[in-house]
Parts: sequence; C-alpha cells; structure tokens
Amino acid sequence: MSEVERVEYSPVSVRETLILMKDISELMIDLAYSAALFNNKELAEEVIELERKMDSLVYILNMNLMLAARDKDDAESLAGVAKVGSLTNSISDAAADIAGIVTHDIGIHPIVREVFQRAEEHLARAQVSESSILVGKTVKGLDLAAEVGVDIIAIRRGRHWMIDPEKEIVLPEDVLVARGTASGLDRLVRAARGEVEDLG
Amino acid sequence: MSEVERVEYSPVSVRETLILMKDISELMIDLAYSAALFNNKELAEEVIELERKMDSLVYILNMNLMLAARDKDDAESLAGVAKVGSLTNSISDAAADIAGIVTHDIGIHPIVREVFQRAEEHLARAQVSESSILVGKTVKGLDLAAEVGVDIIAIRRGRHWMIDPEKEIVLPEDVLVARGTASGLDRLVRAARGEVEDLG
Repeated sequence: MSEVERVEYSPVSVRETLILMKDISELMIDLAYSAALFNNKELAEEVIELERKMDSLVYILNMNLMLAARDKDDAESLAGVAKVGSLTNSISDAAADIAGIVTHDIGIHPIVREVFQRAEEHLARAQVSESSILVGKTVKGLDLAAEVGVDIIAIRRGRHWMIDPEKEIVLPEDVLVARGTASGLDRLVRAARGEVEDLG
Repeated sequence: MSEVERVEYSPVSVRETLILMKDISELMIDLAYSAALFNNKELAEEVIELERKMDSLVYILNMNLMLAARDKDDAESLAGVAKVGSLTNSISDAAADIAGIVTHDIGIHPIVREVFQRAEEHLARAQVSESSILVGKTVKGLDLAAEVGVDIIAIRRGRHWMIDPEKEIVLPEDVLVARGTASGLDRLVRAARGEVEDLG
C-alpha cells in the first residue's frame, strides 16, 4: 500500500469536501476502535485506506480554499474552514495510528480491548462474494436493520468510497462496512460470503 | 485560565483512567462541534477545561504504566495502552483547537456551521442557579429524556467532572452538559436558570 497518488486540483465544493472529511473521520474512529477490539486486520486496513483518501481530500480542500479567497475578508473567514479541515485530518491520523497497532501486530492489551468493548454496537467489514444472496439487491430491499439489526454505513468499490450510502444503491459492491450487534454482523458477514441462504 | 497544576503520581487503575480518557475525548469532540455550530463560547470553554483535565490524565496514565511494567513482556504489552492513551489525547487536542476557533473569535464560516449542523441532536451547557426547579432533584427523578427529550451526559462541579453521571446523583451541580433536540435543550437551559416553573 505504498502507492502515492498525485493529487490534482479539481473544482469541487468546499462544503461537500468538508462534509465528506468529517464523515470519513468519524467512520475511521469507529472502524479503528472495532479493529483494535477484535484485533481485526481487515478493518484496520480499511482505516488505512480511508486515511489515504483523507490525505487527498485535505489537499483538494486547501486548493479550493485558496482559489475561493478573493480578498482579506474572504481569507479571514475561510481560515476557520481550513482549520476545521486540518483538525478533521488530525482525528483521522489518530484513527490510522490505532489501526497501525493492529496491522503492526503490537498486540492488543486486554485493557485496550475492554475500553473499546463498552459500546453496544460495533463495526464489521463484509466482502460480498459472487455467490452471496446480497448480490443484485438494494440496501433498502435488504432491510438489514429490521432483518438482522445492522446498518450499512459505508460501501467501498475498489478505491471509491460511499459513506452513508443511498438506500437505492444496488449491491454487490466490493466491501461493506456495517454497524450493529455482534450476532447481526456475524450473520451479515456470512451472508456476504455466500454461506447462508437467507438473512432472517 | 493559565493556571497550571502540578500533576503528582497517584496509584489509579490504568483501565479506569483509559476509559475516562476515551469518554472525555468523545465528549470534547461533541462539545467542540456544538460550540462551533452555535458560536457558543461557554461550550468552547468547557472543552478547554476538559483539555486540561485530559493533559493531567495522560501524565497519570503514563506514570502508572511505567510502574506496571516489570519486565520486557509487560513493556511490550503495555506499549499499546500508552499509544491508545496518546491518541485519545490527540483527538482531544483537535477538539480543543476547534473550541479555540470559537474562543479566539476567528468567526465561524457558514460552511463550518453547515457541516456541524447535520446531527439531529446537539449539546448545550446549563448552569444551574439556586432558584432553579432542578435543585435538589436527582437525574433519575427529573426523567429529562421523557419530559423534554434531553439526556444529561456530564456534570461539572468546579474542576470535578462526572461523565455519564449516575442517575441517583442529586442536583444542583454547577454545570450540566446535555444532549438532545434544540427545543428540549432550550427548555433545560431555561429551567436551570430558574426561568420556568415546570419542565413539561
């Protein structure tokens, strides 16, 4: 994962970029905690993948902010936006460092596990296989919240992330990130692998 | 607020300290977002107050970790705990920086407000006055969740914080931090000030 992309200027909305950055940083924290809790390398690698995405977004945000500032007043008012962007990035760096404890096999001390365990809901990563019953369904159609008590909070197809995806999106996508109870997540992961015939 | 306390070693549980640090960092992020959203200096100052608490906790955690490590295996296994502690601290630093945008009067750009606005629930700070109907009641007795749709997520008395306080705790405490709907929070703040005769 040492590939570094050249980040080129693209004229995107500062607003949309900052919203995406905040969503990604929150997802990264949750993913990193779950990765540490379950000593789960797959989850940890998703965090590190998101960190690369975040790094690009910081550049894009700052380029667009520079071009948006036409005068002193603009610059003052946009300085706060840049600051929030850089802080969102700091939060995501911290999440990536937690993920690094997992990928570097430092070992998760029982105390750390206990600290991260207190949440009732956790995250899991599900790789949808060709033979899965999820294939060809929409997020809405699956009604996972009602069926197994989990929500799909992100979908990754290759390098492209959809955070809080539209309910009309058709699966399969490469990787699902879901939040829910331990048993619901287990059920979803097995369904994604094609190991079960129905979700209920 | 430039007073710096000398942090002395005290034999506390590493586990309890790390749990408290994680709770504080999460509270700080939520408070900082709400402070930025409403350009609310009181909330921002609570974040900065919590940041000082967090700084002390980092020292105490590390002192206790050093004393806990008796051999090479202990040191390896506790290194990850120290790392999680320092990352929790990084997250709280980022929150304090967001609060700093508010206390330094840099001005909150509409884009930042919009980014933080998307949550349905927000936080507010309520200073309980002597004449408030909240005085002498317990958190449980008030049943704020049912009455006005807010939860008290922290109580501060002077420098002492209670995060996720016990339901049996008797008010008033100096400062309440609550999460809920805009109208519920407004109701609570007015009740704390002693401006209303009942909550409902």
